[in-house]
Amino acid sequence: MNILVINCGSSSLKYQFIDMKDESVLAKGLVERIGIEGSVLKHERTGMDKETIKQSIPDHNVALKLVIDALMNEKYGAIKDLSEINAVGHRVVHGGEAFACSVVIDEKVKKSLEDCIDLAPLHNPPNLVGINACEKILPNVPMVAVFDTAFHQTMPASSYLYALPYEYYTKHKIRRYGFHGTSHLYVSRRAAEILGKKPEDLNIITCHLGNGASITAVEKGKSIDTSMGFTPLEGLIMGTRTGDMDPAIVTFLMEKEKLSAKDVDSIMNKKSGVLGLSGVSSDFRDIEQEAEKGNERAQIALDCFHNRVKKYIGAYMAELGHVDAIVFTAGLGENSAESREEICKGMEFLGIELDTEENKVRGKEKIVSKESSKIKIMVIPTNEELVIARDTLALIK
Amino acid sequence: MNILVINCGSSSLKYQFIDMKDESVLAKGLVERIGIEGSVLKHERTGMDKETIKQSIPDHNVALKLVIDALMNEKYGAIKDLSEINAVGHRVVHGGEAFACSVVIDEKVKKSLEDCIDLAPLHNPPNLVGINACEKILPNVPMVAVFDTAFHQTMPASSYLYALPYEYYTKHKIRRYGFHGTSHLYVSRRAAEILGKKPEDLNIITCHLGNGASITAVEKGKSIDTSMGFTPLEGLIMGTRTGDMDPAIVTFLMEKEKLSAKDVDSIMNKKSGVLGLSGVSSDFRDIEQEAEKGNERAQIALDCFHNRVKKYIGAYMAELGHVDAIVFTAGLGENSAESREEICKGMEFLGIELDTEENKVRGKEKIVSKESSKIKIMVIPTNEELVIARDTLALIK
Repeated sequence: MNILVINCGSSSLKYQFIDMKDESVLAKGLVERIGIEGSVLKHERTGMDKETIKQSIPDHNVALKLVIDALMNEKYGAIKDLSEINAVGHRVVHGGEAFACSVVIDEKVKKSLEDCIDLAPLHNPPNLVGINACEKILPNVPMVAVFDTAFHQTMPASSYLYALPYEYYTKHKIRRYGFHGTSHLYVSRRAAEILGKKPEDLNIITCHLGNGASITAVEKGKSIDTSMGFTPLEGLIMGTRTGDMDPAIVTFLMEKEKLSAKDVDSIMNKKSGVLGLSGVSSDFRDIEQEAEKGNERAQIALDCFHNRVKKYIGAYMAELGHVDAIVFTAGLGENSAESREEICKGMEFLGIELDTEENKVRGKEKIVSKESSKIKIMVIPTNEELVIARDTLALIK
Repeated sequence: MNILVINCGSSSLKYQFIDMKDESVLAKGLVERIGIEGSVLKHERTGMDKETIKQSIPDHNVALKLVIDALMNEKYGAIKDLSEINAVGHRVVHGGEAFACSVVIDEKVKKSLEDCIDLAPLHNPPNLVGINACEKILPNVPMVAVFDTAFHQTMPASSYLYALPYEYYTKHKIRRYGFHGTSHLYVSRRAAEILGKKPEDLNIITCHLGNGASITAVEKGKSIDTSMGFTPLEGLIMGTRTGDMDPAIVTFLMEKEKLSAKDVDSIMNKKSGVLGLSGVSSDFRDIEQEAEKGNERAQIALDCFHNRVKKYIGAYMAELGHVDAIVFTAGLGENSAESREEICKGMEFLGIELDTEENKVRGKEKIVSKESSKIKIMVIPTNEELVIARDTLALIK
């Protein structure tokens, strides 16, 4: 049973082709700059060199066709016949309140996804384009949608409601949804496995720290609160996103700088975060380097970021009451020992004791807390594609 | 030495007249509906019945004149001669970055206050009107400005910067200022006194929970973080204010509901909070009553409010590293045993153990945690007027 996992962005298409017998990745790749000059497919058959195929890729249909060709290529492909693709799992950003778990895609589901476009105008349309492209090229292959929001649908009202007039929730569905759900789900389950416990017997705080970043309070295997909100803008300071901010600043900025709603949205999403603070880059590695060289604003950006993460960990400790483990994942969470150290610093009083020697690890599973630490601190590389493939397998069976 | 403490709102003037020999309040009162039909002065000489004087009060000059008349009234006054008013202390909402402590008012200070109007367009203008009225009526009496923001000027950049493009901070002074400073200062100092310690030897989380509400992390006597931000909108859920919210909702609402920046500001400040959530009232007492009767939305509003307070306590515990005491103050904090119980519930793991019997207290100083609680939980009625009077006395000496 082979599953193709697809993650479509507005001008990109990421994929993994997974053999579910042993959950091994047979091939993976990325199409970039779809519809833009300089489009390219980077394909990698596991164990072989990366192939780079440059050609005009005007839309997602062409992109997907190219991916299928690569998968069937004699030299660097993974299959001989289309029939070896047994199912497709699609990452879908926003499932709204309609989807609390993954679902086999049919016409009704597609209609519901269209209804969610309003809530995720940047993300859901390319997801739908990817689904339609697959339908065309792989007409009889079952498809499953796996939602970034689904894991968080267990949040109680006290976490997901904003203190706005209530009718904005009923009328416009303005509430906290949360994102990165498959990642938070994966690492919280994996943490339980590593600790030899059931997810139901643990409270875990999962920190997905990448260019996009969010933290989740996982109580007995279920998300009860998460830092991203109505959109992926809220919460932690990110590469280019503000995260939490006095909402009154939005209108103040519009008036002072004569900005439209769209302008200010764009600034908050694309020009803020550690990029805006540091003036250096949206990439934490660049900022860490600059800070080491003595760049003050780069240091401030890191300080602000670490401080915010620290506060969310504390907030979720208070909400969960009892915490067994804190998990770090995603680009920065998996790879930056410095960030993990800064975040955990000074929290010994709360039962969080990092072992700075054990913490010297990049991108692999490890417990990095001291023996004496009441709360285990863990590094677990995330694997959203595997969650998508597993859900797809489970649903088409 | 008698000090008149003045707190001017856009259509109100609150005052206390304090004898600094023993810090006793000789008289106090409130002028309401200044410039609006139905204006009234409510005056109370300590130990006597409240006087209600109804008459047309077109502006703050007339209001202040009326207050002085009341203070000099033969029957219910407190003084015989204007010369017995030795100084005036003014509450000023916003001191921006210019004022990290109280200051004797001169022309230069007045100019700086005018410069802050941009940052507090609703609050600073009436404060200035009050200052000017006093200058007219009490021309040779020294005056001091005491700022709501001053106590928080010790925050580090990692707490006060938002992750926006940095030039918005340098150009427009967009940063976290924090408010309720005199209250957080008063109760944190008072907590140290009660515990028989110096403020420098304690870390305290102060919860000012009233119709406006904020929480402060006080490290060794200094504010290092607070929940209100650039404006008093951010942070906790309040009577009519949203508090924290995904900033992307602001522009979403503007587009969906065809609202102007002013409209949406007004909704976030005046129609949201527990009023918006419950649909019942902005007054927590009304909401508690309705919730007890089984009103679900009233219960949800309370749950959301308590959950948010809980999270801020956790966040500031993480930031402070070690916490000695949590203080509850202001209308709800001093008086609602139910709210204190809900907020502290389930935080035993963090060293917070409320004694539910001791907690049955309203509006007086008391330690309400269990003997075994690592962190002391305290109820301390706030006294912003006393802080203003003390600062005034200290500065004019």
